[in-house]
Amino acid sequence: MNAHEIAEQFVLRLDARDWAAWTELMTADVVYEVPQSRERIRGRDRYLQFNQEYPGDWHVVPKVVIGEGDRAAVWFDWRVGGAATADAQVFFELRDGLIVRITDFWPEPYEPPPGREHLTERW
Amino acid sequence: MNAHEIAEQFVLRLDARDWAAWTELMTADVVYEVPQSRERIRGRDRYLQFNQEYPGDWHVVPKVVIGEGDRAAVWFDWRVGGAATADAQVFFELRDGLIVRITDFWPEPYEPPPGREHLTERW
Repeated sequence: MNAHEIAEQFVLRLDARDWAAWTELMTADVVYEVPQSRERIRGRDRYLQFNQEYPGDWHVVPKVVIGEGDRAAVWFDWRVGGAATADAQVFFELRDGLIVRITDFWPEPYEPPPGREHLTERW
Repeated sequence: MNAHEIAEQFVLRLDARDWAAWTELMTADVVYEVPQSRERIRGRDRYLQFNQEYPGDWHVVPKVVIGEGDRAAVWFDWRVGGAATADAQVFFELRDGLIVRITDFWPEPYEPPPGREHLTERW
């Protein structure tokens, strides 16, 4: 699989809770990071446990998948309980066809700062 | 230029305020969106004005650039006044070698929710 396919399979197998097939995509020493909360998880076993323990009926649905060489990114929908959805992004770094680094971003909604209403519309 | 090069040039020319070269990368009807604030700007002229009017001594420094076909993503550092930095992401959609859609994400720092300290370290 190329970087695009690996990134897409990461999201699809995670959503399916197909843990065996999901962990096959990464190295044993994979590193997961969340820069917003300055959290890091070292190793596939802990990262698997983190996802297995993650609360709620969550789902991840890929919207845009981009792969090039040893890098990939997925913009995905994060859905909980079939209702609330949010845009999130994950970046991957690969080595020899396996994921070695995963970085997640969880942007929150915010109100626009004043001063640009003359240029923007809202939805 | 391929999608990778166009995305990288978008960030570099924006940082340089090289407005003529920067606007050459996109179509006249380019659409810019910020899903977090549900803001949309239609058209190159307005999008140019938005960036020219954006307050502060801001800089954008690409950290990861990924391009594939008609899609690209850049994970970049957002720096203001040489001090504060933040991770941000931009996704591009191209048509015939020009940018037709730009989507920005501005993730904010947050404190981790409780219950995963047994798996994570922090920095």
